[in-house]
Amino acid sequence: MEPLLVIKIGGNIIDDDEKLSSFLQDYAALEGKKILVHGGGKLATRLAGLMGIEQKLIDGRRITNAETLKIVTMVYAGYVNKQIVAKLQSLNCNAMGLCGADGDTILAHKRNHPVIDYGFVGDVDEINTELIRNLLQQNLDLVFAPITHDQQGQLLNTNADTIAQEIAKSLSGFFEVSLIYSFEKPGVLLDAEDDNTVIPAIGPAYYKTLKSKQKIFAGMIPKLDNAFAALNSGVKKVVIGQAEDIRNLVAGNSGTTINND
Amino acid sequence: MEPLLVIKIGGNIIDDDEKLSSFLQDYAALEGKKILVHGGGKLATRLAGLMGIEQKLIDGRRITNAETLKIVTMVYAGYVNKQIVAKLQSLNCNAMGLCGADGDTILAHKRNHPVIDYGFVGDVDEINTELIRNLLQQNLDLVFAPITHDQQGQLLNTNADTIAQEIAKSLSGFFEVSLIYSFEKPGVLLDAEDDNTVIPAIGPAYYKTLKSKQKIFAGMIPKLDNAFAALNSGVKKVVIGQAEDIRNLVAGNSGTTINND
Repeated sequence: MEPLLVIKIGGNIIDDDEKLSSFLQDYAALEGKKILVHGGGKLATRLAGLMGIEQKLIDGRRITNAETLKIVTMVYAGYVNKQIVAKLQSLNCNAMGLCGADGDTILAHKRNHPVIDYGFVGDVDEINTELIRNLLQQNLDLVFAPITHDQQGQLLNTNADTIAQEIAKSLSGFFEVSLIYSFEKPGVLLDAEDDNTVIPAIGPAYYKTLKSKQKIFAGMIPKLDNAFAALNSGVKKVVIGQAEDIRNLVAGNSGTTINND
Repeated sequence: MEPLLVIKIGGNIIDDDEKLSSFLQDYAALEGKKILVHGGGKLATRLAGLMGIEQKLIDGRRITNAETLKIVTMVYAGYVNKQIVAKLQSLNCNAMGLCGADGDTILAHKRNHPVIDYGFVGDVDEINTELIRNLLQQNLDLVFAPITHDQQGQLLNTNADTIAQEIAKSLSGFFEVSLIYSFEKPGVLLDAEDDNTVIPAIGPAYYKTLKSKQKIFAGMIPKLDNAFAALNSGVKKVVIGQAEDIRNLVAGNSGTTINND
């Protein structure tokens, strides 16, 4: 099967013009088919502040009331997405920016939580693999903003990690998918305070050991659980590392590779 | 040749939730291939006010400094575009929202005016007809936001009327294109104060007469000049009228039809 890279970049890169530029240069130079999923960054929070809309986070997830949804739609699907697309276009990379409503690429439903009302937050139901494959076949580099829809006319704010994972899983029947999560740290660390303690590879047995010895930083556990879930659904490999180092992450020379061996 | 509708809706519809909803219902029900181009509406101006960014218009065109470009990108390519796409998706219309940077669909250059510095305003150079035809072939209903790019990484604010016209012209070699401009009035009026004086059809000779008798409202002249330019470039017909009446405009039962007869 043909390889496909699904790469998620986080807010810290998006908030830093220089880092973003440098990342996009490296990204544009990556060969083969690829999909970029971006998070939001601080512009949404700043804008909410200017507009006097109070922001509330629970477990790192933004509670999305109607006004906040408007802001994240503007910032994520508008400014951030188109900014990235225009930059990639200038780097000879035929990027096309989409949110999940576009072409019904990502269908979701409003989260129905027994205790917390997350507001207009979406949980993914289905990826339109037919259209995505079709667009990739036209040599388009897809850039997804973390906004989905429910097919009833409602846009929904959706976690970018989850979108990357769902896209990677659903395309794994058609491509040899590598899923790359970039974040602030150079990989999964043995000592959260020391960037020189990157664990190069984690398989299921080692993960169990690390967890039982409480060697894994709590914030990493959902990411790793998701990584193993992706592998169990057909994704070939998952790499966690720094966006600044994307070429090496793709080549498997840095970051932490999660595998099922 | 297969028919194609290129429909431009203006800000007055976008600013009115009820009118927009009703328009989109009618739009979704229109048969055949179609492209929607939308303008901006007042949200951009409101947001600029909240953010303390002074807005300047010259001849009805927004002077687009860097901060204003950020706002129009957010509002036009983000909020307005995705809002329309999500609503159309709920109406069984497989909409996909794009700006001109996406897939390099609309290439433009920064306007170089001898006297006025319009800022980040783009004049269209080229429409990527190959990609647009390809997307239409996949039964996608394209929805364009009035933002283009220069292939050098710069997004540009671009007049929505112009985008509709350029798309219509460039696709006229492949489709039988009807270009429909919707605005506040029910058509071109003989008496600007009286909505019951719609001129049903205007050809080149009649247009000359109307202009020489100064019967055409000054604001309409660029629209009509553009309409004739579109006809001369292969567009089959141009209709000007009210978005609320889109079904009749498409059927040729209302509004003003500009023709070359």
